[in-house]
This record gives sequence, C-alpha cells and structure tokens, in this order.
Amino acid sequence: MSYIADDIVCDAPAGRLEGAEAYRGFLGPFVQILTSSKMIAAFGDDETALVMYDTETVPVKSAPGAECVTVKDGKITYSRFVFDRAPFDAARTAAS
Amino acid sequence: MSYIADDIVCDAPAGRLEGAEAYRGFLGPFVQILTSSKMIAAFGDDETALVMYDTETVPVKSAPGAECVTVKDGKITYSRFVFDRAPFDAARTAAS
Repeated sequence: MSYIADDIVCDAPAGRLEGAEAYRGFLGPFVQILTSSKMIAAFGDDETALVMYDTETVPVKSAPGAECVTVKDGKITYSRFVFDRAPFDAARTAAS
Repeated sequence: MSYIADDIVCDAPAGRLEGAEAYRGFLGPFVQILTSSKMIAAFGDDETALVMYDTETVPVKSAPGAECVTVKDGKITYSRFVFDRAPFDAARTAAS
C-alpha cells in the first residue's frame, strides 16, 4: 500500500472507491484468492501507467484485468480498473 | 475491418474467437448498441497497442473496456479484450 495515495480514487466495475482504506477493502479479499498473475502488457509515461495482466484465482482460472493509474509525487492518486465480474458472479452462485 | 487480419485470434471474456468473421460477429452487435466512446489511455510500440476506453451503450451507460492488440504487417493478428459482462448480463435479465 506504500504507493497508494491516502485520497486515492478508484473507479472499479462495482463503482467508485474513495480513499486508501476503501481501496484496501476492495483489493484485500482479491489478494486472498489470487494464486498467480502474469503481465500481458505495461506502458506508461510520467503521469500514467496502463497495464493489462492475467490472474489465476481460486474460483476463476483466468481473470484478466486492466488498470490505468495516475501517479502524482510517486503515489497512485487515481485508478481506473476493468475486469469481468461475470465469472466471479457465476462461481459465487455455483458455490451458494 | 480493414485492419483486422483474416486469421485474427481474439481472447474475449466469453472465450476465444478465431478468424475475421467470428470477430465481426462478436463486435457487430456491440456497434449496434454503441452510442459514444471516449479514449482513457492509449500506448504502444512497434508491435503492441494497449488501449483503455469508456463506452456508452444503450443498455449500459458506462462500459469501459481494454484491449491489447498485436500488429503484424499493418494488421491486428491478436487481441486480448477485457470488459465487464456483468452490467450487460443484468440489463439482459431486466429486459427479459
């Protein structure tokens, strides 16, 4: 979390998250189910990084995601986060 | 379709599409419901382009997507495509 600004804003599939604690609450459970990840592509300039990666998780074998982050003074202040919730929703439904 | 290789391979949320006709069959219906789009970020090098954009569609007001494409001889030969199917699934369920 050392690169996350205290006032980070993250636009994720389920909506906007504001602040480092909300961001941690969002990503923490994901880290728990993450088994591996692989970078597909990563580009950027002085202020912006755009990455795409594939992840393997316990419920979903291939869950690619993309993030576009804005960096200011060495901290991520904004993140736009895209991934497909459908396979996670399906896994949750199948498990319940 | 002039930049799409005949043998394009596209890994999309619902699975792999092979060939320009399959790709057209996938994107054609999307173009029908697309009302506007806005580039969020675009980067690349000689062989790879990574883009993230937001789209507004008839059923889903904000449907961001990301694509990582491989270009060979001026044609897109591979595309990795990430977007959230959940709001489209929800709109389809609500409409049925």
